[in-house]
Amino acid sequence: MEYRIEKDTMGEVKVPADKYWGAQTERSRNNFKIGPEASMPLEVVYGFAYLKKAAAYANEELGVLTTEKRDLIAQVCDEILDGKHDHQFPLVIWQTGSGTQSNMNVNEVIANRAHEIAGKTIGEGDKTIQPNDDVNKSQSSNDTFPTGMHIAAYKKIVEVTIPGVRQLRDTLQNKVNEFCEVVKIGRTHLMDATPLTLGQEFSGYVSQLDHGLKALENTMSHLGELALGGTAVGTGLNTPKGYAELVAKYIADFTGLPFVSAENKFEALAAHDALVESHGALKQLAVSLNKIANDIRMMASGPRSGIGEIIIPANEPGSSIMPGKVNPTQCEALTMVCAQVMGNDVAITIGGTQGHYELNVFKPLMAANILQSANLLGDACVSFDVNCASGIEPNHEVIEKLLNNSLMLVTALNTKIGYYKAAEIANTAHKNGTTLREEAINLGYVTPEEYDQWVKPEDMVGGLK
Amino acid sequence: MEYRIEKDTMGEVKVPADKYWGAQTERSRNNFKIGPEASMPLEVVYGFAYLKKAAAYANEELGVLTTEKRDLIAQVCDEILDGKHDHQFPLVIWQTGSGTQSNMNVNEVIANRAHEIAGKTIGEGDKTIQPNDDVNKSQSSNDTFPTGMHIAAYKKIVEVTIPGVRQLRDTLQNKVNEFCEVVKIGRTHLMDATPLTLGQEFSGYVSQLDHGLKALENTMSHLGELALGGTAVGTGLNTPKGYAELVAKYIADFTGLPFVSAENKFEALAAHDALVESHGALKQLAVSLNKIANDIRMMASGPRSGIGEIIIPANEPGSSIMPGKVNPTQCEALTMVCAQVMGNDVAITIGGTQGHYELNVFKPLMAANILQSANLLGDACVSFDVNCASGIEPNHEVIEKLLNNSLMLVTALNTKIGYYKAAEIANTAHKNGTTLREEAINLGYVTPEEYDQWVKPEDMVGGLK
Amino acid sequence: MEYRIEKDTMGEVKVPADKYWGAQTERSRNNFKIGPEASMPLEVVYGFAYLKKAAAYANEELGVLTTEKRDLIAQVCDEILDGKHDHQFPLVIWQTGSGTQSNMNVNEVIANRAHEIAGKTIGEGDKTIQPNDDVNKSQSSNDTFPTGMHIAAYKKIVEVTIPGVRQLRDTLQNKVNEFCEVVKIGRTHLMDATPLTLGQEFSGYVSQLDHGLKALENTMSHLGELALGGTAVGTGLNTPKGYAELVAKYIADFTGLPFVSAENKFEALAAHDALVESHGALKQLAVSLNKIANDIRMMASGPRSGIGEIIIPANEPGSSIMPGKVNPTQCEALTMVCAQVMGNDVAITIGGTQGHYELNVFKPLMAANILQSANLLGDACVSFDVNCASGIEPNHEVIEKLLNNSLMLVTALNTKIGYYKAAEIANTAHKNGTTLREEAINLGYVTPEEYDQWVKPEDMVGGLK
Amino acid sequence: MEYRIEKDTMGEVKVPADKYWGAQTERSRNNFKIGPEASMPLEVVYGFAYLKKAAAYANEELGVLTTEKRDLIAQVCDEILDGKHDHQFPLVIWQTGSGTQSNMNVNEVIANRAHEIAGKTIGEGDKTIQPNDDVNKSQSSNDTFPTGMHIAAYKKIVEVTIPGVRQLRDTLQNKVNEFCEVVKIGRTHLMDATPLTLGQEFSGYVSQLDHGLKALENTMSHLGELALGGTAVGTGLNTPKGYAELVAKYIADFTGLPFVSAENKFEALAAHDALVESHGALKQLAVSLNKIANDIRMMASGPRSGIGEIIIPANEPGSSIMPGKVNPTQCEALTMVCAQVMGNDVAITIGGTQGHYELNVFKPLMAANILQSANLLGDACVSFDVNCASGIEPNHEVIEKLLNNSLMLVTALNTKIGYYKAAEIANTAHKNGTTLREEAINLGYVTPEEYDQWVKPEDMVGGLK
Repeated sequence: MEYRIEKDTMGEVKVPADKYWGAQTERSRNNFKIGPEASMPLEVVYGFAYLKKAAAYANEELGVLTTEKRDLIAQVCDEILDGKHDHQFPLVIWQTGSGTQSNMNVNEVIANRAHEIAGKTIGEGDKTIQPNDDVNKSQSSNDTFPTGMHIAAYKKIVEVTIPGVRQLRDTLQNKVNEFCEVVKIGRTHLMDATPLTLGQEFSGYVSQLDHGLKALENTMSHLGELALGGTAVGTGLNTPKGYAELVAKYIADFTGLPFVSAENKFEALAAHDALVESHGALKQLAVSLNKIANDIRMMASGPRSGIGEIIIPANEPGSSIMPGKVNPTQCEALTMVCAQVMGNDVAITIGGTQGHYELNVFKPLMAANILQSANLLGDACVSFDVNCASGIEPNHEVIEKLLNNSLMLVTALNTKIGYYKAAEIANTAHKNGTTLREEAINLGYVTPEEYDQWVKPEDMVGGLK
Repeated sequence: MEYRIEKDTMGEVKVPADKYWGAQTERSRNNFKIGPEASMPLEVVYGFAYLKKAAAYANEELGVLTTEKRDLIAQVCDEILDGKHDHQFPLVIWQTGSGTQSNMNVNEVIANRAHEIAGKTIGEGDKTIQPNDDVNKSQSSNDTFPTGMHIAAYKKIVEVTIPGVRQLRDTLQNKVNEFCEVVKIGRTHLMDATPLTLGQEFSGYVSQLDHGLKALENTMSHLGELALGGTAVGTGLNTPKGYAELVAKYIADFTGLPFVSAENKFEALAAHDALVESHGALKQLAVSLNKIANDIRMMASGPRSGIGEIIIPANEPGSSIMPGKVNPTQCEALTMVCAQVMGNDVAITIGGTQGHYELNVFKPLMAANILQSANLLGDACVSFDVNCASGIEPNHEVIEKLLNNSLMLVTALNTKIGYYKAAEIANTAHKNGTTLREEAINLGYVTPEEYDQWVKPEDMVGGLK
Repeated sequence: MEYRIEKDTMGEVKVPADKYWGAQTERSRNNFKIGPEASMPLEVVYGFAYLKKAAAYANEELGVLTTEKRDLIAQVCDEILDGKHDHQFPLVIWQTGSGTQSNMNVNEVIANRAHEIAGKTIGEGDKTIQPNDDVNKSQSSNDTFPTGMHIAAYKKIVEVTIPGVRQLRDTLQNKVNEFCEVVKIGRTHLMDATPLTLGQEFSGYVSQLDHGLKALENTMSHLGELALGGTAVGTGLNTPKGYAELVAKYIADFTGLPFVSAENKFEALAAHDALVESHGALKQLAVSLNKIANDIRMMASGPRSGIGEIIIPANEPGSSIMPGKVNPTQCEALTMVCAQVMGNDVAITIGGTQGHYELNVFKPLMAANILQSANLLGDACVSFDVNCASGIEPNHEVIEKLLNNSLMLVTALNTKIGYYKAAEIANTAHKNGTTLREEAINLGYVTPEEYDQWVKPEDMVGGLK
Repeated sequence: MEYRIEKDTMGEVKVPADKYWGAQTERSRNNFKIGPEASMPLEVVYGFAYLKKAAAYANEELGVLTTEKRDLIAQVCDEILDGKHDHQFPLVIWQTGSGTQSNMNVNEVIANRAHEIAGKTIGEGDKTIQPNDDVNKSQSSNDTFPTGMHIAAYKKIVEVTIPGVRQLRDTLQNKVNEFCEVVKIGRTHLMDATPLTLGQEFSGYVSQLDHGLKALENTMSHLGELALGGTAVGTGLNTPKGYAELVAKYIADFTGLPFVSAENKFEALAAHDALVESHGALKQLAVSLNKIANDIRMMASGPRSGIGEIIIPANEPGSSIMPGKVNPTQCEALTMVCAQVMGNDVAITIGGTQGHYELNVFKPLMAANILQSANLLGDACVSFDVNCASGIEPNHEVIEKLLNNSLMLVTALNTKIGYYKAAEIANTAHKNGTTLREEAINLGYVTPEEYDQWVKPEDMVGGLK
């Protein structure tokens, strides 16, 4: 491989000749051989591209950067956002906990690519644009990395998570309407209970997701606060007056999202409670989705020796050894995602506790985990929706059979003959393997007419319609 | 011990003669010998007392319970809330996951005590009030237990957690004001960085707690939703028309808190995402408090061989072997509480995932964990406030010495001579063990006058004032 | 209340006159009002009693304590171990993280009670025995607390956890034998699969518990290492030569358990990886038990509209509203315990990470959590065994019906006619609602005689007998 | 893109013409668009390659597969293990929870590539080797996937984790020897305590890692148990007699690792407690490493306003804004890895709890998490060793200054003048800002000669040498 020489304040470093990155990126590549290369999420890089462009605009407007430099920086940022330089960011999550080297990676790529755009050859002549003094002007890794990760996480949540969850929620709401007259047995403790409609059952799922989406949206204002302008320790040293607000405004403009300057920059650098907060809501959604997916696979179990009340789409052969088997594979993918999100929540929680003084140095860990969770949850909801939920159908025959067998219909008699006599009827029928109706009449507690009038499953589901 | 005979639908049971509880409570005592007796939190029992009274009022108003029975039930509930019957609730957390037996424990105690109030002898004659048909009228364990635990958790959070956190937050805000002119060295990566004021540092803590309190308050509307009225599976079977809303209104009246009837009773029985949501916010507060307590103990470390920038109150001898030792014990108690809350969050998360069909049967676990977290966090904040935070004083001598030694003051020169020359100055001073001023002048990058004008710690903290 | 005056190096403190504790215990009571009083587990106090007695013996043998003092100390320790002073230990978990004040609580109680035994009046005259110089001789909180918690955890695990798990394991092994000829349908992905015996199914549970017990036993040698002899920072300052090994020998003698002196005292004070390790094994058992309890409640679901393959004992009325309902309540208690243990594991993990320099100050948290987990797991296994597992019976009628319906018996044809044709048979039968036999013959792939010879459920379970 | 037609039991599917995979892989690609493509770890694929080859050998030896087919299968497996087909495995973790489609992906690639090796054109003519009937012979996804993941995890742990941890452990042991005479102040509660040597401090780290490695090794026998031979539900249906043991022997031969056939195949399919167990040990190592890395960064803090007792290598410029800054970046990378491992532990725990009946369907999740943890821990230890630990040097000047200032040297006087007088000396010196020596003499408790003879730091570190 061919190399060129780049340098930083520590001296010279050999860098692959065909790459835009510089000395500090290369040092990091060599010093942190931990896990697969380039694991730092590209979304964070794109977050940086937004903020570097915004910083250039703010710096120019406030008179500390020339218009020419601003435009060069902005042009490279746009190229990065177009995905043209994805291979220029080789660093890993497991680097310095401030993400300093990922900030420098972006600074170096912008500086060298700008040099090229300016008609020069990389590695020759003074850099047209300096990575530290120009691209990083009015910035520190300590405020850029949290800004980049907030932009990345915010975008992922509004672009992937929320639409994905909503798509599934809307499908489930359609099922509520479709299934509103399908009376079925209820189950508590996994045991037969009083009836409800399948639509009512699904309405619980919709309510879970509605509450979860609301909880997630509640967290977005904290996540929308940007650290930029705090620089090294939160005081905003080396920033021009008015910079923090202006740069946030530019980021809001460029992303189309309601970002604002963090109300307290010390919090924004030293703590990442905003990520803890938003991820807490993602975890809540994982809890909800886990419940929903579990219910669906239990109700779809069978086809002959399970519950079998609903039918889910058969998308692939289910077994390499058992011919003709169909499995609730989307439920499995979704619940695995949920387990991952719950694990990620602990990683983020631990990372969040360990800020020291003016800086939390678990930033890349926290960024990577929230991005993974937000992405997986959104994707998994869409996959589950398209390949499973939207195709769910009731198995009317089974539903009816299970409903009519149930001893728990006796509950309707509580208000007529009291809990104790009703229990006696149910226990007797259970012991004798008979029907409630038989035993209710045998025991002399009701007449046949009363029984038929009082015990109607379809009348037992309506209290809350 | 003397016994009397009680019975339920399964038959007779011997019960201690001096206790109000009945057959089902006694069965549960015998069947669930898991951990210490009476571990079910009394707060849950009190939550039940509110709801049983409210149910009696609603039932009476809707014509399904006599006024006499209502008043008897209400009287016992008031006695329970006065703490007069605390020893009548011997059950453990680790019982049936719906908390059925704790519901029956309350029903039985109310029924027997009411019998006594009505002038009868317990165990003799027909019960004046039936535990199932009267006390539990229009109810099921499945909707009462979640109602009881929502009432308990809501009360604990508004009565203990929020006031405790706020008290600490206000003390820290006072410190922000007190310390607003104490310029000190900043630290990032635990390493010397540019200066800030001690007040700015504390303002980050205040901001963390403000965000945390807001996050917690965001969760309260979900927690304020009550399952009551859903009965067995959410359909409201065996409830009179209008009951759910009316009983919630009574609970709101009796507690003085803004409880409402859950918008979807199926969600309210089968999922406890509201507890997941509120506990997520408690966990976020734990993350914040952990950071704050860690910082304070690191800054207070010493007294002679640590950082020593602040002085915390000496509350007790610190060591059984090292005479004269003082330790940051309140920081330790608080961070242990934080670790417990983070563990509890996982227990609640796991419990929350495992609802099946119409019921989540991890209710007592979830209730116990959120009550413990809410209680410990509130108590620990008050303890930390009273015994530590409010007594924090800066050690001006140390602060000044550490500030003036710092090589990171060189950052002020970035905008004057560029990052690279500034780095050269710092590196040279570091290598030679000299001061920045000496090397800056030696290297010829600044004049003494320029140095003194440009490098002023007190001018480096103001960017964001 | 009446008080007497006690003092420590910080001055005088008023203490309840009827209590043995002294100044430092009282300070701690006042300074740490966090959660319920006396939450520090008594097991830790008993651990201290063993070690204080052992230390007195070692000190006497090594010539630094008089025989009279040794005997007085030992006598009080024996009284503590007899449970005579349980109310003398009012402190909470949430105190200093080294447990210093619980160490002093024990020291003070021993000193004052010894004074009394020596015929004096507490609070009058010089103490017969000094809490620091005599009771705590050759000790520090930093080595006594970890020693006390190792003793407590070790005892709890061998006295409660292991016997409890083993009792359940043995019952399940009996069921393996009982059920070894009950052929039933297997289920994978919750869907019908090829058959196995109910005994084989239970043998998986036994294997899980066997592996779990082995894993737990693997951790005991680390847990058996005692910190005592390290004193303040691990160097053993102020201990006589040979003390560490001798005191460990006495503890081993007094407890009858194979405790040894920790091979590295710095590790034993600054890290509590032994608790992390043992609790990891408890968590593994929780994972196993969760699986087992889940399976059992799913197999017992019904009675009419669930799986219903097994019958579990009916121990209590299952519902306050649904008469005659029986629930898998022991499964619920057990899985709630499992969730708690998994949460506790995170609390212990976090506590374990936060040792700083020579001391981990999350000791009481870690001790309390491992004791709770060890206790709950043992108790819950016994409760589950006695009240559920030992009474499990197969429902032969249901098992046979579900087995014979299954389409997955077709797998037996794979080796005869190939996977593709077998799949075609199963799919056709599924679509037409017919039997495998019909379609296998209709499609012309087998003769009736071949079918009957090749597809025998009882021949499909034997590969691994 | 060009396509060819492949089919399975559900019908035809279009597959990219240049890929070896078949219908089921393609279905999975389309049905599970969750997260980035090809996230299923290649290590699992390689695990499959070992087992498919071993199965072919066992099948041939037992007379159910021709030698020609065995050799074709083995040849492709070898190619896969040589990394020649890495791009043929496009599936994601978030698929069916049994990993069925990854098993089929391997089966399909082997079948098509074998067809090609046999001189045919893919997609033309009958397949030389059938994916289900030949490659998958005597197997099921249900036993192959857990076998593949055990092979993958076992190899990763012995090839990456253990050597990485050991390398760091050995470096730390060298430091123990190097630093064995460097007497320094001890710190407990972050506060000044009695002295120890820097070597003793490091010996605690070595002991932690030694215990951790032992704990990890204790888990390997469970992880070495292979499910293969259990087929669909654990009964070994459709396997020739003797197959399970024989195939395990071949896997042991081919990998050179001590794999054995699982003692209970029902456990091996339905539970993955072996992964829970091994990951528990990885988590314990993470806890230990977190403590070690934290200590090192705190001791290295400064350079002028921190603790500064040790010097760590300067590997990269530490700040994009603060010139000349050096940070403990390797500590940060390592502690981030530790946090990830602790999060992964919860994901694996949750996955482990959720086996149902004969199958746990969280396999890919569990496999991916343990592989990530094992890999990151090993890599991070090497990186930390090479770039940090091996270069640690004491800062003798600072160490000596901090040691001699310490008030806790007074502890040496306990055994001479008693704890109370010693405390008085320390408290007076603290209050007056004087030295212990001055106050000890002033207070008249010791003579100057006694003080100098009794208070020697170098004599205070030796109790446990």
